[in-house]
Amino acid sequence: MSGSTFGSLFRVTTWGESHGISLGAVVDGCPAGLEINEEYIQRDMDRRRPGGNKFGTARNEGDKIKILSGVFEGKTTGTPIALAVFNENQKSKDYSSIMNVYRPGHADMGFTEKYGIRDYRGGGRSSGRETLARVAAGAVARKFLEEIGIKIYAYTLSVGNVEISEKNISTRFDNQFFMPDNEAAKKAEELLGKIRKEGNSVGGVVECVIEGMPSGIGSPVFDKLDANIAKAVLSIGATKAIEFGAGFQAAYLTGKENNDEFYMSDGRVHKYTNNSGGVLGGFSDGDNIIFRTAFKPTPSISLKQKTVDKFGNDTEIEITGRHDPVIVPRAVVVVEAMAAITVADLLLERMTSTLDGVLRYYKGE
Amino acid sequence: MSGSTFGSLFRVTTWGESHGISLGAVVDGCPAGLEINEEYIQRDMDRRRPGGNKFGTARNEGDKIKILSGVFEGKTTGTPIALAVFNENQKSKDYSSIMNVYRPGHADMGFTEKYGIRDYRGGGRSSGRETLARVAAGAVARKFLEEIGIKIYAYTLSVGNVEISEKNISTRFDNQFFMPDNEAAKKAEELLGKIRKEGNSVGGVVECVIEGMPSGIGSPVFDKLDANIAKAVLSIGATKAIEFGAGFQAAYLTGKENNDEFYMSDGRVHKYTNNSGGVLGGFSDGDNIIFRTAFKPTPSISLKQKTVDKFGNDTEIEITGRHDPVIVPRAVVVVEAMAAITVADLLLERMTSTLDGVLRYYKGE
Amino acid sequence: MSGSTFGSLFRVTTWGESHGISLGAVVDGCPAGLEINEEYIQRDMDRRRPGGNKFGTARNEGDKIKILSGVFEGKTTGTPIALAVFNENQKSKDYSSIMNVYRPGHADMGFTEKYGIRDYRGGGRSSGRETLARVAAGAVARKFLEEIGIKIYAYTLSVGNVEISEKNISTRFDNQFFMPDNEAAKKAEELLGKIRKEGNSVGGVVECVIEGMPSGIGSPVFDKLDANIAKAVLSIGATKAIEFGAGFQAAYLTGKENNDEFYMSDGRVHKYTNNSGGVLGGFSDGDNIIFRTAFKPTPSISLKQKTVDKFGNDTEIEITGRHDPVIVPRAVVVVEAMAAITVADLLLERMTSTLDGVLRYYKGE
Amino acid sequence: MSGSTFGSLFRVTTWGESHGISLGAVVDGCPAGLEINEEYIQRDMDRRRPGGNKFGTARNEGDKIKILSGVFEGKTTGTPIALAVFNENQKSKDYSSIMNVYRPGHADMGFTEKYGIRDYRGGGRSSGRETLARVAAGAVARKFLEEIGIKIYAYTLSVGNVEISEKNISTRFDNQFFMPDNEAAKKAEELLGKIRKEGNSVGGVVECVIEGMPSGIGSPVFDKLDANIAKAVLSIGATKAIEFGAGFQAAYLTGKENNDEFYMSDGRVHKYTNNSGGVLGGFSDGDNIIFRTAFKPTPSISLKQKTVDKFGNDTEIEITGRHDPVIVPRAVVVVEAMAAITVADLLLERMTSTLDGVLRYYKGE
Repeated sequence: MSGSTFGSLFRVTTWGESHGISLGAVVDGCPAGLEINEEYIQRDMDRRRPGGNKFGTARNEGDKIKILSGVFEGKTTGTPIALAVFNENQKSKDYSSIMNVYRPGHADMGFTEKYGIRDYRGGGRSSGRETLARVAAGAVARKFLEEIGIKIYAYTLSVGNVEISEKNISTRFDNQFFMPDNEAAKKAEELLGKIRKEGNSVGGVVECVIEGMPSGIGSPVFDKLDANIAKAVLSIGATKAIEFGAGFQAAYLTGKENNDEFYMSDGRVHKYTNNSGGVLGGFSDGDNIIFRTAFKPTPSISLKQKTVDKFGNDTEIEITGRHDPVIVPRAVVVVEAMAAITVADLLLERMTSTLDGVLRYYKGE
Repeated sequence: MSGSTFGSLFRVTTWGESHGISLGAVVDGCPAGLEINEEYIQRDMDRRRPGGNKFGTARNEGDKIKILSGVFEGKTTGTPIALAVFNENQKSKDYSSIMNVYRPGHADMGFTEKYGIRDYRGGGRSSGRETLARVAAGAVARKFLEEIGIKIYAYTLSVGNVEISEKNISTRFDNQFFMPDNEAAKKAEELLGKIRKEGNSVGGVVECVIEGMPSGIGSPVFDKLDANIAKAVLSIGATKAIEFGAGFQAAYLTGKENNDEFYMSDGRVHKYTNNSGGVLGGFSDGDNIIFRTAFKPTPSISLKQKTVDKFGNDTEIEITGRHDPVIVPRAVVVVEAMAAITVADLLLERMTSTLDGVLRYYKGE
Repeated sequence: MSGSTFGSLFRVTTWGESHGISLGAVVDGCPAGLEINEEYIQRDMDRRRPGGNKFGTARNEGDKIKILSGVFEGKTTGTPIALAVFNENQKSKDYSSIMNVYRPGHADMGFTEKYGIRDYRGGGRSSGRETLARVAAGAVARKFLEEIGIKIYAYTLSVGNVEISEKNISTRFDNQFFMPDNEAAKKAEELLGKIRKEGNSVGGVVECVIEGMPSGIGSPVFDKLDANIAKAVLSIGATKAIEFGAGFQAAYLTGKENNDEFYMSDGRVHKYTNNSGGVLGGFSDGDNIIFRTAFKPTPSISLKQKTVDKFGNDTEIEITGRHDPVIVPRAVVVVEAMAAITVADLLLERMTSTLDGVLRYYKGE
Repeated sequence: MSGSTFGSLFRVTTWGESHGISLGAVVDGCPAGLEINEEYIQRDMDRRRPGGNKFGTARNEGDKIKILSGVFEGKTTGTPIALAVFNENQKSKDYSSIMNVYRPGHADMGFTEKYGIRDYRGGGRSSGRETLARVAAGAVARKFLEEIGIKIYAYTLSVGNVEISEKNISTRFDNQFFMPDNEAAKKAEELLGKIRKEGNSVGGVVECVIEGMPSGIGSPVFDKLDANIAKAVLSIGATKAIEFGAGFQAAYLTGKENNDEFYMSDGRVHKYTNNSGGVLGGFSDGDNIIFRTAFKPTPSISLKQKTVDKFGNDTEIEITGRHDPVIVPRAVVVVEAMAAITVADLLLERMTSTLDGVLRYYKGE
């Protein structure tokens, strides 16, 4: 309820503010015996950094993840895995322009209304830096899923009004936008140059695929696989929408068009199409999970905006300082992380679903 | 984790299968002293029934809600409110055609894979009848929210490819589709006649509005208001997508266009626009919450479909019997119910957010 | 949080007041494929009834359990199992003497202070009848545990100051007190006659044994097996204490005396003694779990007592009507039920604890 | 479920092993606006240290708490408060004698059975050092409770067979055992000298008092105040029993003797006696909460013991190194911490219990 914990069996609790001492996550319930180390996690951390798609040549050495507990001799022990990033050079910047003013598009007002107090430095708890903890925890989930043969990858479908026109997944690391279309990436780069100059910003759409899912993951009522992924993904700052498979378009198809017919092949059930996006009735259906999520444009822009202050006065604001004119590329790995955490959680839950499974586990029957 | 409980402080647990003895819900944590009775709840139950929008002249008397506990002398007592519908005339129909066959678009396969056993009568736990329990619990939440001044209403934006062209909310009860556009409703009726004759089905889009929300409801990280609503709504069977405010379109706007600027009026903060859909950074922003969700076409169609059986054979299926060629109109009240439950839960949580509030409560300070 | 749900994976939610329409429980997360029926559950229900130890000749036919959902063709389906008792002949008794008065030793005051309203008929939610729902849910847990080879049984160690002097477990069903010592039971019967005549009451101590526990059940920190059992058992009305193994006496032993030394036999670890009560460091240690719990004397006595009313006046009360002068015998099966629910929950959790177990489940490795 | 989280609204998640990099806690849900700093928390941390009752002259400077997040300008912000201790000089000791051997009275076997892997250095996650995190989180809860006027203090009733003969609470800080009887403390010191020389150990009993409790805290069924405290306290390593008020003795009293009669004074309800220990029917009754818990003797003793190794061989062990021959004095503050966390959680929950309270909060009615 208290809002910083996600999941039940594979449970993630995060802490930290943008300009505080540390941000981090506790991963509790990760099965014991999983090989994991800081290098593995750091790879995902680096993808979240500005310019994190530059072939491993991250320009500076920040955001280093530390494993504080839960790993012994290179393996998880079943105890909570604490993961932390310690903030460096927290220079005291001048926040007087925003400490009492609500930035449009930001959580400033809601935070103040609810808590009466707000760490305004860099957005505090509502900063994009909060996702550092998600990515660290997500890397542990990803490693766990890899062992079972599940792979999660996301990529950018659009940046502003630049959309991809081909989906060449393997090329997504070739450009700074994680777009599976290098031509589109070039156009996006041009757009960004223009947008940055204007002091404006853009959003974009990210698509995520989960490959190798066993079927029957999820529950028939409230803990549907897609419902849980939706919560996970819409809890990422700046997301405004999510759709699975045919998504909103499914509302315009007929049942005959939209239903994915089944057939057998290689001893398992397949579908001729994947309008379901891999989820039927809340359970994985054995096909790839596919979903898309929309990120709004970065709310921090340097153009002048009308706003109010916390004393109830109308005022104006121009947000200074460097701000990403688009957060989509950095969010790609965050989407993957949240998907991985959700799947890990429900995957563990399924293990307890039948008496046969219980007897096999406890009595070797 | 076990999948039939939703919420923390205002917590709903449901039970029941389509053709079992009873379906119901336990609402635990509803504040004491709320006036509620079966008539109030029945009104929402009736809206969920086929033809439930026919000016109170529901054609038969089924789906009667009973309050089994938690209400004394017309008021809630703070103890769990059990609500049940008892199924009538559970005649033994012949299910041999579907008991071993996976209906395309349904949960049959996932259910069997996870649990090894399935109550195939009428879809069992994965039937649309499961939403009876949501609506009953949602009516309690709705009554609670009304006391605070919060109103929730949903309506149909499209049925198949028939979309509304005006949004005249007050007319939504005038037609069987809960469309705020009687002209569109007529076209939808024609479409449905045709679709039904073909043995096919269509989906649609529902929009939901929450009026009178205080600001600051929700949490900054995982329990964001929109994230929790997304889970609630995507846990309804047949939903495939959700978006808030500008939604997917936000990804194509610039920050300048998408940011809702603030101004003061009547002593409180307002926004010039509502691209946020009433949620900023996971908190309600004081404006109306607005979201849309897509329902896929009813998967039960009588047209012949390819499928497989649970023994691993390819086969075909023609689903006989009466099936709604569209579930959207009946789902409108279910969307409202899930939204109401989610908001009630987070509304209670907010009360514990500041020391000042605690001192006021315990010390009258 | 809302207080009527217990457990995570094997999760029980209860509802109902003493004189309401129905009391019941929803068991969510019970593995699918477990054979269960009303007769099995009824046996435990009957043991909870007054005179419930009379060789199956329960004097009347009340408290009949109904399975409302979750069981199909005699087996659990993995969906919530709703269990209900419907109250019969709810005659309108005269409650004017207690509706505004706080009975000493009862929850009346706390209930009123917290909720402002109270269903005073027969104690409402705080009645001993509330345990009906626990026993029903506990019977499902017991059936599940039996399949794994785990047996739970409790018996009475003392009634008032009558203590057993031998522990002949198999005789516990021979007397109405569930005492494993028929001589002691006779003395208890005499005591009860005297106490009843005085309008007074007595308490007693119950001991519970869990046989056949696998080792390694429980968690090292907050969800220790004994911590969870303690919560489960102290949530039963009228319990005031619990101890495991040597219990309070352990505080007076030396480490050398108290430590249970290990040895191998039959290929598994054994202990020479069982001061631990079967729990070490929060995990089951493979030995029998043994704990004792103390029940206070029934607070409802007909002797005159000083008290206050809810308007803040001093007054006196004599509680009329039939009341059990001891609740211990009827509580024996409730203790078993809560222990069974707790163990079932942690038993499921253990299945997710190692990567090896996960790979065996998902990849057959 | 994953075992390292306690509480719902005031929620504590801990991490860390004895000889790992760091131990710590995340406190999520603490109301915003609470003044807290490291010095305040450190006071409790110091009381947990060996010799922690020596008038503030802790012999070394270890176990320094750091606040990593959640506090801004000296006040909590409503976001998670991360608290950490970083282990110093983790010298590589020789653990070959215990890495494969199960120490009697320890969690070694259960840990290995459940997780297959164990951080054997200093007991790993099952070390007494784990309580560092509890004490840190408990200090935040204590500070919060102080604001409301609730005070929690515990003291030692017995060390081995040395029991106090007077209860002079204010003197409890005068001796190293936190005993409210300096004479008894002297005898305990003598006993300890002898026990240490023998290579043996002793246990003891701790009593805890919660003063200033409002009535009506707790819930009528599973989340009873005493049930939740019992779980909290029995989750502390080495505890074997807990009792409230008259406790086990209540089982030997009559109803007339045990019932606490009520009377009015100073405008509120009082009781003539406190056999209830301040809890009636799961709610606080306005009186002091009083409970006692038993700690077994330290299982680490240097006397030779029979045991087995993880390969299934019988063997013997003599545990070398310095070990506390009694842990009770250091556990006193841990008991307080767990009680404080539990009370804070239920205190917040109560705020949401009535519609009147909700309307007052949201509408100022």
